Amino acid sequence: MSYKNFPMVPRVIFGRGSFNQLNDILEPKRLNSKAPFIFLVDDVFKNNAWLTSRIPLAYDDKIIYISAAEEPKTSQVDELVEDIILTTKERPSGIIGIGGGTLLDLAKAVSIMLTNEGETKDYQGWDLVKNEAIYHVGIPTISGTGAEVSRTTVLTGPEKKLGINSDYTPFDQVVLDSELTKDVPKEQWFYTGMDCYIHCIESLEGSYLNAFSQSYGEKAFDLCHEIFLDNNLSDQESQEKLMMASWHGGMSIAYSQVGVAHAMSYGLAYLLGTKHGIGNCIVFDHLEEFYPEGVKLFKEMKAKHNVELPQGICASLSDAEFDIMINVSLGMAPLWENALGKNWKSIMTPKKLKSLYQKM
Amino acid sequence: MSYKNFPMVPRVIFGRGSFNQLNDILEPKRLNSKAPFIFLVDDVFKNNAWLTSRIPLAYDDKIIYISAAEEPKTSQVDELVEDIILTTKERPSGIIGIGGGTLLDLAKAVSIMLTNEGETKDYQGWDLVKNEAIYHVGIPTISGTGAEVSRTTVLTGPEKKLGINSDYTPFDQVVLDSELTKDVPKEQWFYTGMDCYIHCIESLEGSYLNAFSQSYGEKAFDLCHEIFLDNNLSDQESQEKLMMASWHGGMSIAYSQVGVAHAMSYGLAYLLGTKHGIGNCIVFDHLEEFYPEGVKLFKEMKAKHNVELPQGICASLSDAEFDIMINVSLGMAPLWENALGKNWKSIMTPKKLKSLYQKM
Repeated sequence: MSYKNFPMVPRVIFGRGSFNQLNDILEPKRLNSKAPFIFLVDDVFKNNAWLTSRIPLAYDDKIIYISAAEEPKTSQVDELVEDIILTTKERPSGIIGIGGGTLLDLAKAVSIMLTNEGETKDYQGWDLVKNEAIYHVGIPTISGTGAEVSRTTVLTGPEKKLGINSDYTPFDQVVLDSELTKDVPKEQWFYTGMDCYIHCIESLEGSYLNAFSQSYGEKAFDLCHEIFLDNNLSDQESQEKLMMASWHGGMSIAYSQVGVAHAMSYGLAYLLGTKHGIGNCIVFDHLEEFYPEGVKLFKEMKAKHNVELPQGICASLSDAEFDIMINVSLGMAPLWENALGKNWKSIMTPKKLKSLYQKM
Repeated sequence: MSYKNFPMVPRVIFGRGSFNQLNDILEPKRLNSKAPFIFLVDDVFKNNAWLTSRIPLAYDDKIIYISAAEEPKTSQVDELVEDIILTTKERPSGIIGIGGGTLLDLAKAVSIMLTNEGETKDYQGWDLVKNEAIYHVGIPTISGTGAEVSRTTVLTGPEKKLGINSDYTPFDQVVLDSELTKDVPKEQWFYTGMDCYIHCIESLEGSYLNAFSQSYGEKAFDLCHEIFLDNNLSDQESQEKLMMASWHGGMSIAYSQVGVAHAMSYGLAYLLGTKHGIGNCIVFDHLEEFYPEGVKLFKEMKAKHNVELPQGICASLSDAEFDIMINVSLGMAPLWENALGKNWKSIMTPKKLKSLYQKM
């Protein structure tokens, strides 16, 4: 038995308004005046002076606004890296991602691809990255994905949706300022929060579980319960606790694995471009068979917050399209093994998986 | 308001038997064949081949066995550092602490003092360390202190018992192998476990609390409850969960602070040499006034495990001796402020503190 030597984020600052300390954090990391900091920022913040005026720009530093309307792509990383190389005098001092999972994953991937040759798609998988990434900072503005602590950056490539899992992927610094999440629209808040909730269920019910993951997963689960069901928190408390739930949920899956919902939602994302948060919700809603208690509680949360999920998104798919989804999904062997055990292939046959997708 | 940018242990491995992977972890960190790894090992493991035969020694690597019968001292660190400098050809590749809080704190302090001039006592305080420590690894063989994740190394100096709190203090690597804790004697298991429990209470009841510390503190508390009261765990589960409780409890106080029990037990340790775990228990047993629920539960745990605490340890102290303890204890301003608020001095007068010590 060999255990994973897990890389953790080595620096974290937590607190309402801690975003104001960004300059103090970054300045000591500036290599020289020609090596800029590049801020990748969710474009929902464009023209939002409350946030952007506090991004400390000096010398050649710049902000690149990026839409998170679509899942991040390997080709998008390649373009960003090329653009950065062409427009900066020296290799940047750092990449700072400000946004949700999409922006955080892009920041991680760009920081890796600035020091590693070739195309981003070549690094989708486990431990394929050769060189240390440049300094990179994650600043979540929505909570739930766990991208702020994870060892992966999940990207859609030409052939697969799969993460760049490596010891160089985790951020060097994370800033946890719950105030940045105060304007997240309700539906998005729910979908992304449920990503965290589903992480807990998949980790806690998985065969890869261990006491490390369990303790983090249980705490994240308890926090989700407090936030989405108990309903006796102030807005600020709820935002702070969801930020911690995301963190602990991310730690939990980092040392175990996700399961059926993630494996299936990767298929939806690849074929239909379904965003990760809502995709997980659409799938999880139909997984009573695998996670009876977890799905029951999920339905309670959905009802409590009057969230209506899209129906029939697979209704008009052709057999060839189903096959594409099924192939992408069944390619996620570790997720299936975690969820269903060593003999997962005899349980989750292509036919069975198709019948599940057909419900959605 | 300025928040702490907290340094976290950047690498952690968790799992039963993960100690066997020590060579794989250390070898890439070896600077050259003249720069040895120095293993500081609790002398309870001397002649214990089950553990020592698995310490990977090569070139000039060596084991230094150290008794944990007394609290670690600044003078002891100075001696260890001098000895290492005199007997190694080059600055070591790393220091590996294997033991409880005493050994872990010694390993941290030695790694700092190998790169910082002067005497150890000069660094007791907050952020006085100038240079990065050498690579250091913590391997707990008893759970509860949180020394494996903390930003401090608590030492008794000529003038005070106080930590070297710095960004360079945390370990570069931690190995969490619960199997190493299997032979801890019951009383020691209880005292050190209660260090963790008391961390939770002091953090959760303190004025410095925030959602980060709270989430870690609550989880550590829940785990302590499971381990010390609920009584439906196997030995292995209990050992693994206590290792995680220690970890989470350490994270909780790292981003908040401890309180009355720690401030008072530092006084006992300084004057009487009372070890930290038992000292905390002796003090906490008399703190109903400050932590009513926490102390009630503590007494239940004590009764359940038939632990008898020493009584009357202050019975024969002179006034001058009380004054020494009181001075050391009241010197811990952040702890008192966390416990009692900004006006702590009007609550915890020397007279009041003496009356508390007189009960013990």
